[in-house]
Amino acid sequence: MIVLVTDFGLADPYAGVVKGVILGRAPGVRIVDLCHEVPPQDLRHAVFVLASSRTFFPEGTIFVTVVDPGVGTDRRILCAIAGGQVHLAPDNGILGAIPADRVEAVHAVERPDLYLSPVSPTFQGRDVFAPVAAAIATGLDPRSVGPPVESYLRLELPRARRTAEGWTGEVLVVDRFGNLVTNVPGDSLAGLRTPPRVWVRGMPAVSLARSYADRAPGELVAVVGSSGYLEVAVNRGSAAAKLSAAVGSVVEVWL
Amino acid sequence: MIVLVTDFGLADPYAGVVKGVILGRAPGVRIVDLCHEVPPQDLRHAVFVLASSRTFFPEGTIFVTVVDPGVGTDRRILCAIAGGQVHLAPDNGILGAIPADRVEAVHAVERPDLYLSPVSPTFQGRDVFAPVAAAIATGLDPRSVGPPVESYLRLELPRARRTAEGWTGEVLVVDRFGNLVTNVPGDSLAGLRTPPRVWVRGMPAVSLARSYADRAPGELVAVVGSSGYLEVAVNRGSAAAKLSAAVGSVVEVWL
Amino acid sequence: MIVLVTDFGLADPYAGVVKGVILGRAPGVRIVDLCHEVPPQDLRHAVFVLASSRTFFPEGTIFVTVVDPGVGTDRRILCAIAGGQVHLAPDNGILGAIPADRVEAVHAVERPDLYLSPVSPTFQGRDVFAPVAAAIATGLDPRSVGPPVESYLRLELPRARRTAEGWTGEVLVVDRFGNLVTNVPGDSLAGLRTPPRVWVRGMPAVSLARSYADRAPGELVAVVGSSGYLEVAVNRGSAAAKLSAAVGSVVEVWL
Repeated sequence: MIVLVTDFGLADPYAGVVKGVILGRAPGVRIVDLCHEVPPQDLRHAVFVLASSRTFFPEGTIFVTVVDPGVGTDRRILCAIAGGQVHLAPDNGILGAIPADRVEAVHAVERPDLYLSPVSPTFQGRDVFAPVAAAIATGLDPRSVGPPVESYLRLELPRARRTAEGWTGEVLVVDRFGNLVTNVPGDSLAGLRTPPRVWVRGMPAVSLARSYADRAPGELVAVVGSSGYLEVAVNRGSAAAKLSAAVGSVVEVWL
Repeated sequence: MIVLVTDFGLADPYAGVVKGVILGRAPGVRIVDLCHEVPPQDLRHAVFVLASSRTFFPEGTIFVTVVDPGVGTDRRILCAIAGGQVHLAPDNGILGAIPADRVEAVHAVERPDLYLSPVSPTFQGRDVFAPVAAAIATGLDPRSVGPPVESYLRLELPRARRTAEGWTGEVLVVDRFGNLVTNVPGDSLAGLRTPPRVWVRGMPAVSLARSYADRAPGELVAVVGSSGYLEVAVNRGSAAAKLSAAVGSVVEVWL
Repeated sequence: MIVLVTDFGLADPYAGVVKGVILGRAPGVRIVDLCHEVPPQDLRHAVFVLASSRTFFPEGTIFVTVVDPGVGTDRRILCAIAGGQVHLAPDNGILGAIPADRVEAVHAVERPDLYLSPVSPTFQGRDVFAPVAAAIATGLDPRSVGPPVESYLRLELPRARRTAEGWTGEVLVVDRFGNLVTNVPGDSLAGLRTPPRVWVRGMPAVSLARSYADRAPGELVAVVGSSGYLEVAVNRGSAAAKLSAAVGSVVEVWL
């Protein structure tokens, strides 16, 4: 199975062409569109998508993540092996989505014999990533794509800080519903006698509940979200709109 | 075959993760993305999508519809059997998309042995719907997901009323083209000596034709649409924009 | 393999229903969503998508392109054979995406025995294209869908003109990144002693580089894009926004 994460969008032919190249070389492989709507060149969003998804895919999955502002420069293309899965990605930080201690091996992709020819300096998703992924899906040992690398870039999502009162963190992602996914770890919030209180951008406090519908429609609610982090939402509405919040907005928690 | 209808959108990892969980447990199953762009929490749109699609999928299809503002509360998750197909959906009205007399059985899903653990109170699409759908796709009898239920919620789309002159109805859906899909049944409009006239929001009358291109570009036209309902469109344009119409706008027909 | 190109978007059930009909009749076929976000009725965009994609799909691929403002009129539906691939499309110019000398045969589709019944005059993607594509995918000879046609409409993308100084062309497509894909052929720009200079809408000159990141973030750059045409971009930004450019904007090149 090959899983695609890109910033190609769906109006242009880019994502479809990548699939065509893969299927021409690996006719039996299954392709899953995980996300093609990463905002253009937004590495942090790509890391979030990959970090919150990869463990839900089975062993043997090949992830191809093409968010690649450095396409066509001499930045390397990497092949990482982690938890029985394979990751192809540019050496631009995306592999930070995998905890460092889970990464078993990282190799540089150097197999022009596999690439489409010529390789376009602006679309290596089609000309390099797709054929290499197809080769791995049809049996190529991922350790044989090129030499092992000593080090590589890791973009790690910012971490929340413990404070005297609780936590100071920030909004990592605003999802389609306007929910604010923060970086405050959810396991620190469970099992307390009094529910923690949460402030976003210094606005009036929100208290923790179990699910969105524990508050009336239109009201703010804090929950432990499905990625294990504190999330601020509005039941049947948008917390981002109600709080004028965005990626990076400050979040404070009092326990 | 598992068919997905959700309001997850395509920018976030949610829809992709659901596919990962299904494929981890049912590696051979085919997944079809029917629609992930239901407007957030818009049950009526979900009902329309399901009602106008289900009969075009083959027997044995498993529909998984996750538009679920009550996620994490004690609302039930249902499994309906109808016309040789299976439907998983929250008990929030979505099953109203299936005519009541076609529903053969409805069971409550109560199989924590199948769920992911722990179950997140905010993402049961991943933790409950996906593994149960995978189990049914790989052979679980859909009647064994839990006890049969006596009654369940049915959100039925509003129906047009007969009047002395013809029909009074409303716009059910505005599609991507700006076409206004109404709830006036199309079979009542065929075979008349004089074509019926249609008013949307009291604007100048539109007359019925066979296809969009029976009018000049930019002109309004009424047709019997592909779901069997009266539709008001602009040839190569948007009726919604031209008439400032939206879901719920009043439609009157004189026969 | 059946590849879909439509202007149906992803919020409505149309694309999903087409897949349901295909899979009901050709259960084993693979369906690839190449692009459902062609702007409504935008034949030129459809031609661009198809022209820049088709050679990256393997032999035997069946392309179904439904951008069809004339749906339900007496415009024909065509089946073209080219380069070992099959194309179903309305006779409205879309087949201009295939160079004329690569087209081996074009037949009119006249097989009501295969269609869904009744055929809706507003959704022939579902009622005609889908079942015919499924029949071809399961073995129907594409030459037996109906009589050969003498001539058919070809919408060809505008070509750039040679000038005393170089080229005068235009923007063919603005992609998701705001990159301006032009119709100036890239092979004429390579291997020159001094890099060519490019003007869009008469704005200050942009010089050619190899890849986007050869300029600082926020700066304009011209490259030979992945479709083989000159492309004007902003590294990590939008050239369309920076230059207020759109489809049809004039592009001049001095060699």
